[in-house]
Amino acid sequence: MAQAPNIFGKQYMLTAGPTPLPPRVSQVMAEPILYHRAPTFVEIYARVLDRLPLVFQTRNEVLCFAATGTGAMESAVANLVVAGDPAVVASCGKFGQRWAELCDAYGAETVHLEFEWGEKVDPARLDEALAGVGRPVRAVFTTQSETSTGVVNDIRALNEVTKAHGSVLGVDAVSGLGAVNLPQDEWGVDVVVAGSQKSLMCPPGLAFASVSDRAMALAAENPGRRYYLDWGRTAQGQKQDPPDSAFTPAVTLFRALDVALDLLFEEGLEAAFARHALLARAARAGIEALGLERFGPDDENANVVTVARLPDEIDGAQVPKLMRDRYGVTIAGGQGHLKGKIARIAHCGYYGAFDIVIALSALEMALRDLGHDAEPGSGAGAAQRVFAEAGEIPAPVSG
Amino acid sequence: MAQAPNIFGKQYMLTAGPTPLPPRVSQVMAEPILYHRAPTFVEIYARVLDRLPLVFQTRNEVLCFAATGTGAMESAVANLVVAGDPAVVASCGKFGQRWAELCDAYGAETVHLEFEWGEKVDPARLDEALAGVGRPVRAVFTTQSETSTGVVNDIRALNEVTKAHGSVLGVDAVSGLGAVNLPQDEWGVDVVVAGSQKSLMCPPGLAFASVSDRAMALAAENPGRRYYLDWGRTAQGQKQDPPDSAFTPAVTLFRALDVALDLLFEEGLEAAFARHALLARAARAGIEALGLERFGPDDENANVVTVARLPDEIDGAQVPKLMRDRYGVTIAGGQGHLKGKIARIAHCGYYGAFDIVIALSALEMALRDLGHDAEPGSGAGAAQRVFAEAGEIPAPVSG
Repeated sequence: MAQAPNIFGKQYMLTAGPTPLPPRVSQVMAEPILYHRAPTFVEIYARVLDRLPLVFQTRNEVLCFAATGTGAMESAVANLVVAGDPAVVASCGKFGQRWAELCDAYGAETVHLEFEWGEKVDPARLDEALAGVGRPVRAVFTTQSETSTGVVNDIRALNEVTKAHGSVLGVDAVSGLGAVNLPQDEWGVDVVVAGSQKSLMCPPGLAFASVSDRAMALAAENPGRRYYLDWGRTAQGQKQDPPDSAFTPAVTLFRALDVALDLLFEEGLEAAFARHALLARAARAGIEALGLERFGPDDENANVVTVARLPDEIDGAQVPKLMRDRYGVTIAGGQGHLKGKIARIAHCGYYGAFDIVIALSALEMALRDLGHDAEPGSGAGAAQRVFAEAGEIPAPVSG
Repeated sequence: MAQAPNIFGKQYMLTAGPTPLPPRVSQVMAEPILYHRAPTFVEIYARVLDRLPLVFQTRNEVLCFAATGTGAMESAVANLVVAGDPAVVASCGKFGQRWAELCDAYGAETVHLEFEWGEKVDPARLDEALAGVGRPVRAVFTTQSETSTGVVNDIRALNEVTKAHGSVLGVDAVSGLGAVNLPQDEWGVDVVVAGSQKSLMCPPGLAFASVSDRAMALAAENPGRRYYLDWGRTAQGQKQDPPDSAFTPAVTLFRALDVALDLLFEEGLEAAFARHALLARAARAGIEALGLERFGPDDENANVVTVARLPDEIDGAQVPKLMRDRYGVTIAGGQGHLKGKIARIAHCGYYGAFDIVIALSALEMALRDLGHDAEPGSGAGAAQRVFAEAGEIPAPVSG
């Protein structure tokens, strides 16, 4: 047989972080670099700082760090955790476990309430755990969107339980911010941390912490053993007029974020949530049409990553590998003990309908290569039906 | 008088960090983003990790963090300083003071040997200070190139003194790495930290720590209260084959660094040092020709930033402001108590002869506007004479 023409050389990066960048965001990074104390950059910096609270739905100053998401998580632990005191972590996956590792590193007596990967954190069990500590608990840490499993936790309920015990909640919203609604002030969540490289449509390298006055006060009572990630120092700089950063900011990434925020607000935060929800519905339908089980609970808020359980009969570790090496479509498989067992279809950030079609089509082709029976086009077809039934098509927001 | 045509609208960013970027470095950041676990990025990551030790002149693994330079400095303090134990800081400017703030934040009994801003750290005084502590000192922290004053310290001598007392030296080489020779292994320096945004010709957002086996062992004996900046965790990931990063790397900045390293090695490290030295000689000659005093000691190694003391008769704070707002040339003035007293001509990273000519010409025009007497062209002329006398002109390395 003659060799097929090379139709799979074109690459599609469809992961949950880094996520695809809008061309306008990529391109602004190629512009000549700016001096961080010159008015041209200070204006961009101030505009970003003014708009970030709208994304977090808060009146807090959103603190910015040149770091990746773990840096923002560490800022929460470094500022809140007191060595020797209890800290409670409620986890259901790899990123939740990181909170426990951080609390351990900072010398907390960590109470780690672990749920199975693929389950949600149960607010009632958190309530019991907090009651069982027998001492006041300063802070509870949990995850909004657990990127390793696709699970999105009920932050509102977890926050209510946490507050009832007098504790502050620190939420890792690294992948969920901008994809799934988390109205921080309305719900009264004390600390929300996030990163630039997920739904915010930027490269990795910026990390954010939106911190309530109450949590800022707790941090101020607990000084020392932090500098770069100290909330007080960063807030002090940002609150100057014009704002100043405690350390040289990652100016290129700030310019990218400024453009990404233009796009996000052009679309509208509510519309972005609705887009993520619709893409997730299509991904869920596609996975079912491929004859795969969905991994994780039925949840209309699980709109960041849709996860398929791979059939036991095939070598699951081959699925993302074949998709990438044979078809040029990069998605992520499972991490830790889920390696080879799941495939993750991302839809956080700059994702549109046809990205879901691509991911499902390539998944289907890889599955067929490995002997799984699926009608060609069944995944894409199911997604398209969801799109067709979704009603009037809004004008696209150009990236 | 008719308004002059707008000949000063074009902007020249000539600061010591961020520094100007080679166009090839800027442009690679506009390419579609890569997934950090895909082979295309892993190859770039491995290539950068292989080449960074050549810049540090070491066989150490150079640890990379998504952070700015202060993050790398904090990694040294967080990994080496034991709360309650003495730590010695030898400083002569704003960035040296940061070491003392970091040591204080980590609970050290900080012995801060402070020299006047504009002076060099005296190795004999460091020797006395170490002898005076009366207890073993685990670590001494100092600055190679003190960007706030232009001073470059004698790291070889400071390291010898430090080692004679059994301590390890942590050197902030954020602005000096790649500009002024610091052969880490030959001199036996235990810890050298740096950032991406100075002589490495990249945007801010990557930080590096080159750590000897001895310093790694001291860090391992001193666990806890660090996670994101933990040397052991980062080394463990980087030493895998293929290398893996403990946390999502700042992929865009790594691509930029990969291109910047291409350029640096195309030029050659020795040639880069010689270029920085020649640009510094020209800047010094230009400043003298403008009738200004140089700030800081006579030093043929002070090749990162050349600093002019501004005449007392003029309002010095206006100098960088006029240069930028009237002439479109951005340089930095003084920080802290040097505000209004100095002007800093940077030449670290992607700087060529005519950048010095521009900076000197704009400085001269601003000085004349403020009433300082200087013959038009005197600064540029002095620089050009230095260039002309420097011998054969090497082929330019295109950025």
